[in-house]
Amino acid sequence: MAARGFPKAEFTARLARAQAAMAANGLSALLLTTEPEIRYFTGFLTRFWESPTRVWFVVVPAQGDPIAVIPAIGAHLMAQTWISDIRTWRAPNYADDGIGLLCETLAEVCGPHGHIGLPDQMETHVLMPLSALRRLEQMLLPRKLVSDAAIVRSLRMVKSEAEIAKIARACGIADRAYARVREVAHVGTPLSDVFRGFQGLCLAEGADFVPYVAGAAGQGGYGDVISPATDDQLVAGDVLMLDTGLIWDGYFCDFDRNYSLGAPSAAVAAANGKLMEATQAGFEAAQVGATMADLFHAMNDIVNAGPDAGRLGHGLGMKLTEWPSIIAQDHTVLEAGMVLTLEPGIDTGAGKIMVHEENIVIGASGPRFISDFQPASIRVI
Amino acid sequence: MAARGFPKAEFTARLARAQAAMAANGLSALLLTTEPEIRYFTGFLTRFWESPTRVWFVVVPAQGDPIAVIPAIGAHLMAQTWISDIRTWRAPNYADDGIGLLCETLAEVCGPHGHIGLPDQMETHVLMPLSALRRLEQMLLPRKLVSDAAIVRSLRMVKSEAEIAKIARACGIADRAYARVREVAHVGTPLSDVFRGFQGLCLAEGADFVPYVAGAAGQGGYGDVISPATDDQLVAGDVLMLDTGLIWDGYFCDFDRNYSLGAPSAAVAAANGKLMEATQAGFEAAQVGATMADLFHAMNDIVNAGPDAGRLGHGLGMKLTEWPSIIAQDHTVLEAGMVLTLEPGIDTGAGKIMVHEENIVIGASGPRFISDFQPASIRVI
Repeated sequence: MAARGFPKAEFTARLARAQAAMAANGLSALLLTTEPEIRYFTGFLTRFWESPTRVWFVVVPAQGDPIAVIPAIGAHLMAQTWISDIRTWRAPNYADDGIGLLCETLAEVCGPHGHIGLPDQMETHVLMPLSALRRLEQMLLPRKLVSDAAIVRSLRMVKSEAEIAKIARACGIADRAYARVREVAHVGTPLSDVFRGFQGLCLAEGADFVPYVAGAAGQGGYGDVISPATDDQLVAGDVLMLDTGLIWDGYFCDFDRNYSLGAPSAAVAAANGKLMEATQAGFEAAQVGATMADLFHAMNDIVNAGPDAGRLGHGLGMKLTEWPSIIAQDHTVLEAGMVLTLEPGIDTGAGKIMVHEENIVIGASGPRFISDFQPASIRVI
Repeated sequence: MAARGFPKAEFTARLARAQAAMAANGLSALLLTTEPEIRYFTGFLTRFWESPTRVWFVVVPAQGDPIAVIPAIGAHLMAQTWISDIRTWRAPNYADDGIGLLCETLAEVCGPHGHIGLPDQMETHVLMPLSALRRLEQMLLPRKLVSDAAIVRSLRMVKSEAEIAKIARACGIADRAYARVREVAHVGTPLSDVFRGFQGLCLAEGADFVPYVAGAAGQGGYGDVISPATDDQLVAGDVLMLDTGLIWDGYFCDFDRNYSLGAPSAAVAAANGKLMEATQAGFEAAQVGATMADLFHAMNDIVNAGPDAGRLGHGLGMKLTEWPSIIAQDHTVLEAGMVLTLEPGIDTGAGKIMVHEENIVIGASGPRFISDFQPASIRVI
């Protein structure tokens, strides 16, 4: 069973890998601004990121431990991590909201020249006001803000055993909640009450919190998989889909379940069967050395998702969705320790779809499910 | 009682105000990338923002309705808003993840020249990869990406009656959940179970979801107000603080409550009394025409928060925290329709603090509480 937190060795190993890659890429420092990046190197875990007021910075130097440059309100919590060099300012400060302190820190770490890497690829962003970023770029000259050469992406994409244990624990919580959906969803229940009740089940089964719930219900399928709940009531014959990314100790699961309100139609049963078949095919293809494109084709050959399908799965971990993507364009090679979702979708006609999703870990000798895959008939309420 | 959604007139009024300000500032378009900005102009409400994979763009032209430039996965949901010009691409796309389509759209709206405003002040960021932003800037030349002149901030800072009703409904849900904390918190309860149980109460009382819960417990106060729950058990004499930003129809409340496990010590009772006195003073100062600095001094004269106190409250609405800030530096003048938190904190000695928080609306003839202010003794469990 996963335990909370990580031993310090987890963080020093991450740092050593980052610094080796920084040396290979000629980077004097990494500058990190977003929640998962900062947590990955420090262990700083808080829901306070929900507030957009403060900016938070961590500098990873070429040698030595990371330096936190953060608002004073975070000093007490950061001091409980393994980070010892914590520099603070009283934020918000309208004259200089930490940019001066950050610039000093980077100058100290880099010397008069140097390239400072920021994650700049897809699925990343720089979490500071654009005006602050532009000011920082000017102040740092002749030092340059450049790409981090995908170092953070490369590190985060392959999970440690301790990380996998946390994700698996989150999956187990969701499995138990999905098994209890009959307690909160019946013909006549407003979808908004189903969502609310389902979140309550996730918490009751042990989730720390439930950042993501989506779902839908409709005859023969649903229109999309990202909508919030309406107050519409469930109707006999509906397919109800619930999808959740719940968190345990900062790590997500991400999978859905479909339920038929009463016996499924032949079309729904057939669509569900195809989804299970595609999931199984994706699972079997998920061997070390295969590419994400291989997984895409293994599944898409069965569901034939069409030109607008989007992706059929993705990485998973500190965020609900992470690199890589199961699309034909993605040639990332699978490595042991990657955690993926398999997420085939199928067109059920009349503008409706059904989507099924499972979570797997890539192992040296093959993949394993960490959500409870039941390749059987659709669940019936 | 607040209803879900907004009439179309709410959005056209927002748009008209934005376009008047754009004309006054010489802007050919606004480019919006983050959740609250996009929702403010379109009504697009989804928890799918939890996934960092996709980028979403809305272009507000100088004349005419906003244009959504979004991943195909969002088309079905966007089509349910008042927006009719919806341009999509299949995302993620590694060759061009929407930047080409966005650039075409901006070129069409702006013509060969033109200044395109992005929110760039504090409490904003640009939600796209840095490499994409840099590419967009090059492709748009000689058109320029410039500051939005704080237009979005100015609009969002003053709420409509319909927005205030949603925030008030969220407050009411939290009030009822706080009244039931005795059901989930006792001497011996692990703090993590208190958090989990409290979130369940918020859902049971009607929250759509509970993005933010923080809290702490300790003898005579607590170390900070942003920490996640530990598994430490509540002890007799602890002060337990719970703070939540729960959501109803996309709008937040943000206030906390303190509980004493058994009768409070004289020091805790006195600190609590000072916090109530400061809150009342802040409330009385919250008149149209006063400044945020006035509110700060009214409260700080009582709690004397010291140089590291941070702010004593802030705006509230589509995000847990919004401009303006109750700090000495903030000279924003209060207007009718602003929604604020009053959040005095006090040092209780030995590195500990207590914080109290209420939510208020600024009205033409004075402020009113939308959380249930009870300027009395601390709640006892």
